[in-house]
Amino acid sequence: MILTYSTIMEKEIREEPEILNNILKNNTPILTSIKKFLGNKDINGIYISARGTSDNASALGKYLIESILGYITALSAPSLFTIYKNPPSLKNKIVIGVSQSGKSEDVCEVLEWGKREGAFCIAITNHQDSPLASLADEVLPCWAGKERSVPATKTYLAEIFNLYLFCSVIGDRNDILELLKDVPLCISDIIEKAFEMDVSRFHFMDKCICIGRGFNYSTAMEFSLKLKETSYIFAEAYSSADFLHGPLALVSYQLPVFVFLPLGPAYRHLKEVIDTLREKTKDIFVFGFDESEIGESGFVIPYKVDEVLSPILFAPVFQAFANKLALDKGFNPDSPRFLKKVTITR
Amino acid sequence: MILTYSTIMEKEIREEPEILNNILKNNTPILTSIKKFLGNKDINGIYISARGTSDNASALGKYLIESILGYITALSAPSLFTIYKNPPSLKNKIVIGVSQSGKSEDVCEVLEWGKREGAFCIAITNHQDSPLASLADEVLPCWAGKERSVPATKTYLAEIFNLYLFCSVIGDRNDILELLKDVPLCISDIIEKAFEMDVSRFHFMDKCICIGRGFNYSTAMEFSLKLKETSYIFAEAYSSADFLHGPLALVSYQLPVFVFLPLGPAYRHLKEVIDTLREKTKDIFVFGFDESEIGESGFVIPYKVDEVLSPILFAPVFQAFANKLALDKGFNPDSPRFLKKVTITR
Repeated sequence: MILTYSTIMEKEIREEPEILNNILKNNTPILTSIKKFLGNKDINGIYISARGTSDNASALGKYLIESILGYITALSAPSLFTIYKNPPSLKNKIVIGVSQSGKSEDVCEVLEWGKREGAFCIAITNHQDSPLASLADEVLPCWAGKERSVPATKTYLAEIFNLYLFCSVIGDRNDILELLKDVPLCISDIIEKAFEMDVSRFHFMDKCICIGRGFNYSTAMEFSLKLKETSYIFAEAYSSADFLHGPLALVSYQLPVFVFLPLGPAYRHLKEVIDTLREKTKDIFVFGFDESEIGESGFVIPYKVDEVLSPILFAPVFQAFANKLALDKGFNPDSPRFLKKVTITR
Repeated sequence: MILTYSTIMEKEIREEPEILNNILKNNTPILTSIKKFLGNKDINGIYISARGTSDNASALGKYLIESILGYITALSAPSLFTIYKNPPSLKNKIVIGVSQSGKSEDVCEVLEWGKREGAFCIAITNHQDSPLASLADEVLPCWAGKERSVPATKTYLAEIFNLYLFCSVIGDRNDILELLKDVPLCISDIIEKAFEMDVSRFHFMDKCICIGRGFNYSTAMEFSLKLKETSYIFAEAYSSADFLHGPLALVSYQLPVFVFLPLGPAYRHLKEVIDTLREKTKDIFVFGFDESEIGESGFVIPYKVDEVLSPILFAPVFQAFANKLALDKGFNPDSPRFLKKVTITR
């Protein structure tokens, strides 16, 4: 049987289950050895450096590391390294560089500085022969094969999955590790369902708001980036808490708002935000697990999952949404205007 | 002479020079005693908690602290404290809570946890009798008087000025301290000029992009928040580096782009971004110091200042811009729809 896909982006989203299995198999031993090495080291914080999609993956990484490993985690300010030449001390820190290509010069400079300061440096990248990989003490590969579509999809999921695995192994959390093993199978099923979604109602949408909380703040950020890249939509992402501090003023009748609603501790808060929004706009689209709340305008993921893991299951859904909407609008999501696959910034 | 102002927001922006003088006079001794106390403590990182405008002030604080004091600085993920009850360890950290009202429950919870972990806790707030102030080991007041306009202006400047003063005193940087003393007088002059700006060309603007780099990333973020709150504009802020990683695809003919262009290390990079943008849109408005680059569409600040300090001088300019645009569009900036002065989130 020859499978054909409408876009490279769709093909790459459909590769995700296999990639996650490869990461589980190949990177668990690497992390076990990192854990052993770190055993007698004095670590008091983590510093992550990334750009674009990888920066959204890192934002989730911050939540995972702070809550599972208990280290404060700062997302890097690359310009302090590249432009101002005045970086913070990285002594007794773990430095993690995240870059699909491994070629981001600014991310490399952060790792170089980390090495000079004696930090333990990890690269999460899809290219094991890249400059970033060669700088790192240890590499967690994405095992995703070449990513050809300009909007990153499979490597986003590979990056966040690596960060989950990092926290599970280093934090001795076998409970999370066991749950991660079930994910690839669920994801296959979710991808099938996601590509059946009807997004045509949003054909004329030119702006929207994407809301997530806590572990899914990064989900909202990455969804909004995909909508910008593939469909040129002015999509702005918010944590539901920040959204109430000012940006709520933006909402008007027929401004579409997308909300990621996992089951778990954030549910009640997000439900209140949805109720506030329902008074102000007709167009709320909920990605979630709870059919009764989602009703007709939304997407139901047919699995129950701990909130901490929900960003993994949401990823292929919003990626498929962006891919489908671009096609519906007549754009080619694989080649957005003005963009190249590798953007090098300093 | 009785002075009248068109809005409370304008009146409060015009109070800024005096507020900065009060902070210099009253908070320098507080910081000198904090410095003495911290002298023999083992500190290895800083954790800042804030929401909305105060979070934008904190984003600048991260750049200042990392570059001047050399401590890695993480912006808090409040939901880990309030919703997930799984916060990181704050041992040997300085925790800074920033809140105009001092009533933000989530910011208070971060400080409470910090105290329990033995962290040194500082509150930057306009209300010395607030819950946040009572939790802190030391308070850096804003000395701004009651802020009545819903969009925060004078307290934003007071918060960032406190963060500059914090870094100058704790980091023994008398050179920066001396420069800070000159700021209030310049600001008076800049405010006069800013309120003469003609913003009528943007009467029909409903979306735009705001770009800053490094120390002025937070400037772009706070400007975009003011445009949302006062004029319901879909304004999205980017670091010029992140902007090239995807969102560049959004730019089209007549999408207005605002750029903050200080003199200093970031100048060359920002100038390149402006040149790239000039090929794609007619509408670039530059806030800067360099008349030759700004031309007819922009605002020239008639002072030369080190790039590190430029966010202070940009603040009253973009605040006046937002105030004037709201009036031009027929809105009352003092009372945005849906918003209250104090937003309590958890």
